[in-house]
This record gives sequence, C-alpha cells and structure tokens, in this order.
Amino acid sequence: MTESSPPPRRRGRPPRAEAGNGPGARERIVAAARAEFAERGYDKASIRAIARGADVDPALVHHYFGPKEQVFAAAVEVAFAPALPAPDVLLEGDREHAGERITRFILGVWENPVTREPVLAILRSAVANETAAGVFRDLVTHRLMLRIAGGLGIPDAQLRSEIAAAHLVGVVMLRHVIKVEPLASANFEDVVRMVAPAVQRHLDGG
Amino acid sequence: MTESSPPPRRRGRPPRAEAGNGPGARERIVAAARAEFAERGYDKASIRAIARGADVDPALVHHYFGPKEQVFAAAVEVAFAPALPAPDVLLEGDREHAGERITRFILGVWENPVTREPVLAILRSAVANETAAGVFRDLVTHRLMLRIAGGLGIPDAQLRSEIAAAHLVGVVMLRHVIKVEPLASANFEDVVRMVAPAVQRHLDGG
Repeated sequence: MTESSPPPRRRGRPPRAEAGNGPGARERIVAAARAEFAERGYDKASIRAIARGADVDPALVHHYFGPKEQVFAAAVEVAFAPALPAPDVLLEGDREHAGERITRFILGVWENPVTREPVLAILRSAVANETAAGVFRDLVTHRLMLRIAGGLGIPDAQLRSEIAAAHLVGVVMLRHVIKVEPLASANFEDVVRMVAPAVQRHLDGG
Repeated sequence: MTESSPPPRRRGRPPRAEAGNGPGARERIVAAARAEFAERGYDKASIRAIARGADVDPALVHHYFGPKEQVFAAAVEVAFAPALPAPDVLLEGDREHAGERITRFILGVWENPVTREPVLAILRSAVANETAAGVFRDLVTHRLMLRIAGGLGIPDAQLRSEIAAAHLVGVVMLRHVIKVEPLASANFEDVVRMVAPAVQRHLDGG
C-alpha cells in the first residue's frame, strides 16, 4: 500500500483499534526493524522507516524500545535466536564430542539461508558501526560466552571459549561473506571434520 | 583548499606541468583512494573525492586505474602490503613452528594501529559490499592462499590453509572488530600460545 492511499478500513476505526496500537504491534516493529537494518545497515536505518514498515506511529517505536540502539538490540535478539541454544548444544552431551557438536551447530545456522541472512545482516552492521558492534558484543558475551565459559570448568574458560568461537566466526567469514574458494563450496561435512578437532582442543583447555 | 578558490600557482602553469599530471600522481591517487575508502566505505566513496584528495582531474583517476572497482583494488593492494609476506613467513623456516610463525605474524599486523587501520578499512568494505568482497577475495586467493597451499605439500592444501587462515581472521574479528572481552584485552603472547597449535594442526593436514 502507498502512503497517499491508506486502506479505507483504517480511516473508519477509532485510534485504539488501529493496527498501530493493536495486539502484535511490538512483534511487527521488531520484524520491520530486522528488515530495515538488514537492508540499509545500522547507520542508514531510520526509525521512521521501521514505523512505516510496521504500520505504526514512530512514537510507538520509541515507546516500546527507546532509542535506535535499543531497537537494533531487539532486532538482533530475534535474528540471533537460532544461535542462542549454542550453550546447551555445547554443554549437554559428552565432552569429547562437544567440539564437533558446536561446530556442526554454529556452521549449520549459516548453511541455511533462512537462518543465515538475518545473522549476516547483524554481522554486517556490527563490522561497519561501533554502536552496532557494542550491541552485538553484549549479546554474544551475555547470552553465549558467559554461559559456555561457566559450564566448561577449564582454566581461562572465557578466553578459550572465545578463541574457539573465533575459529567458527572466521570459517563463517571466509565461507559465507568473503566466499573464498574452495572453502565457500566445500562439502559441509568435510569442513566440520577439519574444524571440529581444533575447536575441541580449545574447549579441552589445550 | 576549496574548489571555489584554487591556488593561483595552478592557474598559471601549463597543463602538463600541473600537480595532477606530474610525477607521483599515481601514488597520490592511491593514497587518496585509501583514505576515501577507509573513511566512507566502498559504497559511498567517490572518484571525484579521490581526485580532489590527490589534487588531480577525475579523468586521470580513470586513466590510471579504470572503474571504481579497480581503484579500490589498487588501494587494497597498498593497504594489504604489510600482510603480503605471509607466505614467506609461513614457508621459510622449520615446519613444526610454521603455525606459531604465521599466527604471530598475522595477528601482529593487527596489533599495530598503523598497519591495522588500513586493513580494517578494507575488511569493513568487503563485509558490507559484494564488489569489494570480490576484490578482497581475489587478492587473498592469489597473493596469499595459492602461494601458501603450493608450498605446503599436504592433501587438500588450499582448503586446509583457508581453514587455518579462517582461525586467524576470526581472532582478528573478535579481538579488534567486535572487541569481545577478555579476548580484546588479552596479552598478545597468551593469544598466540592458544591459537598457534590449532593453526599448526591445520597446516600439518590434521
């Protein structure tokens, strides 16, 4: 629909019943924010465009989330949701296969375009913008790394689990962002087989 | 200097003797391109601004380098210069310490702000823009990975050396771009000591 010709049903309803203030507005804002940040990056994304995408007043975006940084945080949280079970995947199960489990899980999130694209959009914003990097850093630290490190029981657990995570982030960068061959086209199982022992070594405290 | 008031000396000289066509114009263009791409990213960087920075006519930029993509390639080549000895560092010397040598060398390029900032600017452009990613990919493949893989003499040498490189790229991302703690502030030697054995394992074909 265009802004110049809103659907007649909206004009006929009292404000409280409008789509903008109705149930689901918060979810629509988050979805619109994800799309806006993914398409235009953190710097260029605008609250006005997010509000338009969610069919709400810009003031409602601020009411629910506060400033742009926190709208981004909410969008990141949703886009990042497929990766959030990582601590459970890593810590539940036998320790000698933890490296393979987490390698398969994290690289797997990036194999599927449906889960890859939203996380890739976050990563792009985080690499380009310091504020976005800070939001991403807080999420990764508090929702993933601290939980993982707390369950590992090895010396320097947080540093070692970040170095293990760095290996996976690097594979994702070269395979899915820079797309260096042959890594970009390599068989998924071959990649897991080559990466997992290095990740396991870090998780063992080696 | 502003465009509306060029310095008088330029007006008084014949075109061939102008700064724009004098010796060093090519180098000035590359330096201006590096600064422009670093400051504004690939998408927003303009040939006009690069020409202005180099004090040359925009046509001269095209004359030397062709389209924007190739101006970027020239800037990347210069910014990336500190990393280009990597194949020699890796292949010259004993094989059992190759992992430590290359880890220390590549992470070392990123420890020094003077060499870090230009490479970081390239990485930002490459993550944000597909054309820039292609330029970066070609450089990494032809100037680094193929030379390294050719000297390794292990099965799947190119794939394994890319997975080794991925580990270093990931550490750089989390330490210098996303700045996750404690990795961002960890002692350099501690990081090398933890990362090098994993890189060595990949280079051994393990």
